[in-house]
Amino acid sequence: MPLGQSSHQAPVLSEFALIRSLRRRFGRTDSSVVRGIGEDAAIIKMPTGSRLLLTTDLLAEGVHFDLATTTLQDVGYRAAVANLSDIAAMGGVPRYLLVSLAVPHERTAAEIDRLYRGLMQACRRYGVQLVGGDTSASRNGLFVNITLTGAAHPDRVLTRAGARAGDLIYVTGTLGDSQAGLALLQAGDRASASLFDKGADRIRRFLIRRHLRPLARVREGRLLAERRLASAAIDLSDGLSGDLAHLCEESRVGAELDPRAIPVSSACRSYADVRRLNPVDVALSGGEDYELLFTVPPANRRKVEALARRARFRVSCIGLITARRSGIRVKRDDGSWQPLTVTSYEHFRR
Amino acid sequence: MPLGQSSHQAPVLSEFALIRSLRRRFGRTDSSVVRGIGEDAAIIKMPTGSRLLLTTDLLAEGVHFDLATTTLQDVGYRAAVANLSDIAAMGGVPRYLLVSLAVPHERTAAEIDRLYRGLMQACRRYGVQLVGGDTSASRNGLFVNITLTGAAHPDRVLTRAGARAGDLIYVTGTLGDSQAGLALLQAGDRASASLFDKGADRIRRFLIRRHLRPLARVREGRLLAERRLASAAIDLSDGLSGDLAHLCEESRVGAELDPRAIPVSSACRSYADVRRLNPVDVALSGGEDYELLFTVPPANRRKVEALARRARFRVSCIGLITARRSGIRVKRDDGSWQPLTVTSYEHFRR
Repeated sequence: MPLGQSSHQAPVLSEFALIRSLRRRFGRTDSSVVRGIGEDAAIIKMPTGSRLLLTTDLLAEGVHFDLATTTLQDVGYRAAVANLSDIAAMGGVPRYLLVSLAVPHERTAAEIDRLYRGLMQACRRYGVQLVGGDTSASRNGLFVNITLTGAAHPDRVLTRAGARAGDLIYVTGTLGDSQAGLALLQAGDRASASLFDKGADRIRRFLIRRHLRPLARVREGRLLAERRLASAAIDLSDGLSGDLAHLCEESRVGAELDPRAIPVSSACRSYADVRRLNPVDVALSGGEDYELLFTVPPANRRKVEALARRARFRVSCIGLITARRSGIRVKRDDGSWQPLTVTSYEHFRR
Repeated sequence: MPLGQSSHQAPVLSEFALIRSLRRRFGRTDSSVVRGIGEDAAIIKMPTGSRLLLTTDLLAEGVHFDLATTTLQDVGYRAAVANLSDIAAMGGVPRYLLVSLAVPHERTAAEIDRLYRGLMQACRRYGVQLVGGDTSASRNGLFVNITLTGAAHPDRVLTRAGARAGDLIYVTGTLGDSQAGLALLQAGDRASASLFDKGADRIRRFLIRRHLRPLARVREGRLLAERRLASAAIDLSDGLSGDLAHLCEESRVGAELDPRAIPVSSACRSYADVRRLNPVDVALSGGEDYELLFTVPPANRRKVEALARRARFRVSCIGLITARRSGIRVKRDDGSWQPLTVTSYEHFRR
């Protein structure tokens, strides 16, 4: 997540206002900085011309994770994926990882070891190397900061800023699963098992796994960037509504969403049914799916869909980029449009 | 500070044990990682051969800083310097900075702005560019994580691991000032002003400034690295005794210190006098001076001292690297030796 973008309800300033203010006042950089404050990752021009990507995320106990529903191994894994996903959204290759921990005195060495094990599972899966970090004490709660570097080809980096009116809006995978999995974890075993008639256990396991062990779409981001098929991209960490708003802000465009086109898994649909929720609302507001949202010039539409078929990943076209002045709108069932309500995802609610 | 090196009393494991365990279990890296876990900064071999340095530090309210004695502007400045100093110790050029904040709800936008202002003062002084970061909520206290990159020439990177028996041990500047400044801040205005007879205000201001506005020895580190005069280096963040122990551990050597040669400012000497402390103890145990400790092969001794004179920085030869089996020893007044007591610096004490 970029500087000033809050992953929890920002207490000090609205996130857009904070990003704008920081960028205006402190964001002046020389020509080696291709993108700074406001992107998924900073983009640095190296002397050879290749691009160094830099991203960082700070996760706080009680804000981003709750050790009542998440093991330390899952915390480590998810912290790595949050950063891997930022590199994925730019079409980069993730490379080197640093981890800082602030550890309360009640945590044991074995617990910290579990956190590292989860972190290393993600690192190994994505070919990333742990190269250093920092460990210190905390008086209140566990804090985990990850910094991840990535490499990218100069002409093949995706940013949030490239979308143009007329581009199609795509997402990978299905949305809302992570949010549903979190809700099931919070409800506890018995409460959630009784929600479903049959296949309850399978549904429950699928959704919880999507929450605790999300994938970073590194391969998908690279394919889209290498073939220059997408005009802009962002990863879905805060939820579709919030992250689409970020992309539109950076590209200075508006958007029209077709809610019926938003991909929702059958498991998430079952969850929404028994909870009497609209699955589209779950998909729009649920964060931490770590799918990619990307925009595609109309001429590339068939190529993107062919690529996805060949490389076996799911893509769904969910809307259209429009002029900035029309804002971000969602299609009603009767075909009319209503403004999108941006809901800021809270990573867990007590 | 490297992974596993605690800047506060490590609650979970002794820091050496933690570094060793992490390095053994998770520190396997490919040949592009010249140095990983255990150094001031990770050293990455770039495709061109040049070196990318990566360092990160997490500062916790109530552990590393106390907002009763430190302004948020000072917190920002000092957080940057802690990382700049890690790059300085390797002889690198600091380049790009990322900052993550976890902010409690009671902090205002104006306060966070002050933190950024302090951070940017340090960045501007050292030619570093702020390129991104992350801001989120905290339920308990302010947490600041800085990640800083640096660049270095492949044959001219200083590490902790190069010291050999027979090398001389040097430090830049004077030691203990920051610790004395912190103690004065904690004692409050009147208590400390009454400590000194004359020149009290000047002494007090000097020591407090050394604590709140330390310098990172970037220029000094670069000069030593470029001319290949030093065999190893580390920055003094945890205090002379602890950081010398780190260097000896990484170089697999022992050391002999001459306490009378340790450079102590006249201000720190005055402080020690009125507090009835041994100034050498203040210098040995006081952290956050951010001076450099470096080792010099005897053949380079005159060159180092000539360089320091020419470039106008203070260096003091305080001891000798010995074989590992003799451990780290300090000379007594009668000429005999006693083992060094490693005191872990606590960044502030309530």
